[in-house]
Amino acid sequence: MASVFKKEEYLERIVKTKKAMEEKGLDLLVVVDPANMNYLIGYDGWSFYVHQALLVALDKEQPIWIGRGMDANGCRITSFLKDENIFAYADDYVQSLVKHPMDFVSDIIKKYGWENKKIGLEMDQYYFTAQAYVSLTKNLPNATFKDATSLVNWVRVIKSPAELEFMRRAGKVAVRVIEAARDNIKAGVRECDAAAAIVHAQYSGTKQYGGDYPSIVPLIMAGEATKTPHLTWSDDPFKKDEAVLLELSGVYKHYHCPVARTIFLGEKAPKLMTDTAKVVIEGLKETLAFIKPGVTAEEVEAKWRAAIAHSNVVKEARLGYSIGVNYPPDWGEHTISFRPGDKTVLKPNMAAHLIPGIWYDDVGFEIDASFQITENGIEHFFEFPYEIMYNK
Amino acid sequence: MASVFKKEEYLERIVKTKKAMEEKGLDLLVVVDPANMNYLIGYDGWSFYVHQALLVALDKEQPIWIGRGMDANGCRITSFLKDENIFAYADDYVQSLVKHPMDFVSDIIKKYGWENKKIGLEMDQYYFTAQAYVSLTKNLPNATFKDATSLVNWVRVIKSPAELEFMRRAGKVAVRVIEAARDNIKAGVRECDAAAAIVHAQYSGTKQYGGDYPSIVPLIMAGEATKTPHLTWSDDPFKKDEAVLLELSGVYKHYHCPVARTIFLGEKAPKLMTDTAKVVIEGLKETLAFIKPGVTAEEVEAKWRAAIAHSNVVKEARLGYSIGVNYPPDWGEHTISFRPGDKTVLKPNMAAHLIPGIWYDDVGFEIDASFQITENGIEHFFEFPYEIMYNK
Repeated sequence: MASVFKKEEYLERIVKTKKAMEEKGLDLLVVVDPANMNYLIGYDGWSFYVHQALLVALDKEQPIWIGRGMDANGCRITSFLKDENIFAYADDYVQSLVKHPMDFVSDIIKKYGWENKKIGLEMDQYYFTAQAYVSLTKNLPNATFKDATSLVNWVRVIKSPAELEFMRRAGKVAVRVIEAARDNIKAGVRECDAAAAIVHAQYSGTKQYGGDYPSIVPLIMAGEATKTPHLTWSDDPFKKDEAVLLELSGVYKHYHCPVARTIFLGEKAPKLMTDTAKVVIEGLKETLAFIKPGVTAEEVEAKWRAAIAHSNVVKEARLGYSIGVNYPPDWGEHTISFRPGDKTVLKPNMAAHLIPGIWYDDVGFEIDASFQITENGIEHFFEFPYEIMYNK
Repeated sequence: MASVFKKEEYLERIVKTKKAMEEKGLDLLVVVDPANMNYLIGYDGWSFYVHQALLVALDKEQPIWIGRGMDANGCRITSFLKDENIFAYADDYVQSLVKHPMDFVSDIIKKYGWENKKIGLEMDQYYFTAQAYVSLTKNLPNATFKDATSLVNWVRVIKSPAELEFMRRAGKVAVRVIEAARDNIKAGVRECDAAAAIVHAQYSGTKQYGGDYPSIVPLIMAGEATKTPHLTWSDDPFKKDEAVLLELSGVYKHYHCPVARTIFLGEKAPKLMTDTAKVVIEGLKETLAFIKPGVTAEEVEAKWRAAIAHSNVVKEARLGYSIGVNYPPDWGEHTISFRPGDKTVLKPNMAAHLIPGIWYDDVGFEIDASFQITENGIEHFFEFPYEIMYNK
C-alpha cells in the first residue's frame, strides 16, 4: 500500500494550501478534517474517532501528523511523510477526562517554536470539538488564533486531472449502485436486504475499480418516510404501490459521485408525484444546460428557480454543492452551495452535485446530477435515465 | 415507523438524565451526540452532518429537538416528541459563514427563559464543534456553562432488558458477519469484494433480525497492514500466506456487538503469530473468568496484564470499553475504559467489548469478546471459536 496520488501532487496541494494560509495571514494551520488530511498527505484510516491533527507550517516543508500511538503505522503506510514528521500520543490520552490529545498537539507546536504564531483552526469542521479548542487556547496563550474553517476545502475545489479520473471511476461505481437498487427494491423485499445489496455494490465497485465506503450510508426512504430525507432502513418489507427515495453514491478511494433516484413499486405513481417529477426533471435539465465557467453558484440556483416558477413545486433548501474526496459524515465539500448569496464563480475542473429533492407531506421525489465543470459546460460523471423508475 | 422502544422506557431514561443533571448542578443540557439523542427520544436519521441539538431541561417534561428544516419530519416519524417540541431552522443556516445553527439554538434557549441558567455542554463529543461552542457562549453571556461530556453516556452504561435483547440480536448478526468474512476472505479475492460480502451480512442481518449500519466500517488489515489497526481495504487481492486482521461488528437498531478475529491464508501461520495467539487467547479467557459485579475496570485490565506477564506479549493500549447504542464514527460508549486508573465498579447489565489487539512490526493478532455483566459473571452476546482461522 502507498499514497494513491504521486508525491508531487501532494506537494503541489501543500504549496497551494500554504499560499491560502499566507493570504489569510496564518503561519500555522491545524488540520483535523480527515478529508483534508487525506488530501494533503494521503493519510487514510478510520482513526478520526480519536483526536488527531496535521500541522501545516509556512516555515516547514512537510506537514506534521499527530495521532494515537496505534495509528502511527497507518500513517507510515498510507502517507508519504518522513518518519521524523509522524508523532504519536500515548493511549491514556484517549477519551480521558484528565488529559486531552490537544495538550499533546500543543506540546508539538511548542517544540517547533510556533506557540507565538498566527494559528488557523478548522473551527466548524467535524471532529474539532469545543474541548479541543479549549485545550489549544489554554495551552498556547501567546498564539493568535484565527478561524480557518474550510481553508483546505477551498483549495480542494478545483480538481486535478487525477482526481477527476477518480470521480469518473466513482461514476462507474454509481451506475452499479443504482442498478443494484433497481434490481433489489421490490414489494416484499425487506428494506435491510435491499440496503445490503446496494452497499455490496458500493464496496465491490466494478471489476476494474474496487469501491469504497461512502461518507453517508444508503439513504432509503419508503412509504411514510418519503416525506423526509436522511432516514436509513428498517426490517420491514417494501409494500406495493409505495414510493422509495434513494440517496446513494458511488465511491472510489474516497472520491464521491452521488446518485439519487426515485422508485415506484406499482403500475401508476400518484399524480402529484408524476407531475412533480416532470417539473423537476425539466427544471434540472434546463439548469444543467445553463452551467458553464463564469456563471455563479447563485445564478445556477436562480436559473433552477425560474425554470420551475410556472409550477407549484417549491424547493427551499439549497439546490446542491461541491463534491470530491470525503469521509463520514458528509460527502459535501463544504465550499460551494448552490443557493442565493453564494457568489462563487464556477471554473473548469470544479465538481458538483445538484439534488433537487422535493418532500411533500404525503409524497416525495428525488433525482440528481453529479458532474464536473468543463471549459464550456459540464460533463456528467455517469449517465442514468432521468425518470421515475417503476418496479411493478 | 415509530420509536423502537416503548415510550415509558424513553421517559425513564429522561428521568435518569435529569437526575444526573441535578447531581451535576445543571438546569439545562444541550445534547448533540446522535447516540444520546437516539437514546433519549428515539430520533434516528443520518442528519448529524449538520448541527442539531436536543435540549433537556429540568423544568420541562419533554426534551426539545432542534434541527434542519428538512429533518423535522424525520424527528416526527422516529421520535415520540410532541410537535410543539420540534423546532427547525431554515436552510441558509447550513454550512454558512455568516449565521450558525447554534445561533438558532440560542434563540430557542432564550424563548424558554433558560439564558441565565446553568447549561451543560457535551464539550468533547463528536459534532459539537469549536464554532458551536463559540456561538452559544457569545449568544448567551449570562449563562453558566459546564462540561457535561458523557453525562448521558454514563446514564446509558446500565442497559435495560430491552436494550440487552437488542444486543443479543446484534450478537446473532455478528456471527453471520464473521462467517461472511471467513467464507469470502481467500487468496485471490479482492479485498473490496470481501468487504462487500461482510457489509452485506451486516446490513442484511438474520432472517429474523435485519441488520443496521455499524458505527465503524469493516476494518480489514491484510499483509503489510497487519502492523496497524483502523485501515479499511484496497482493490488488491489477498495473497497466499498472509494474515488478515478483522475488526467488525453486528448491529441491531444501532446497538453494537463487535467481533474481531484473525485469518491466516495458508497452511501455517508464522510462529510469532501462533505464539502470540496462544498467549492472548489464554489471557483473554482468564480475564473473562475474573469479571463479575464488584470488580473495577482497572482490576480487569490488571488481571489481563498478570495473565500474559509470563510471555513477551505487550499491550499498551486499553484492553476494552463499554458498548451499546452508537452512531459513526465510534461504537465505543465513551464511559468505561479497561485500563489503569479507571475505577468504575462493574455492575449487572453493563456491556463491554474486550479487544486485546496486538500489532508487531511484522505481524499482528486480534481476537475479542462482547458480553454483558450478569449477577455473578458475564454472558457472551455470541459464541465463535477462539482461534486463528485458517483459509488454506
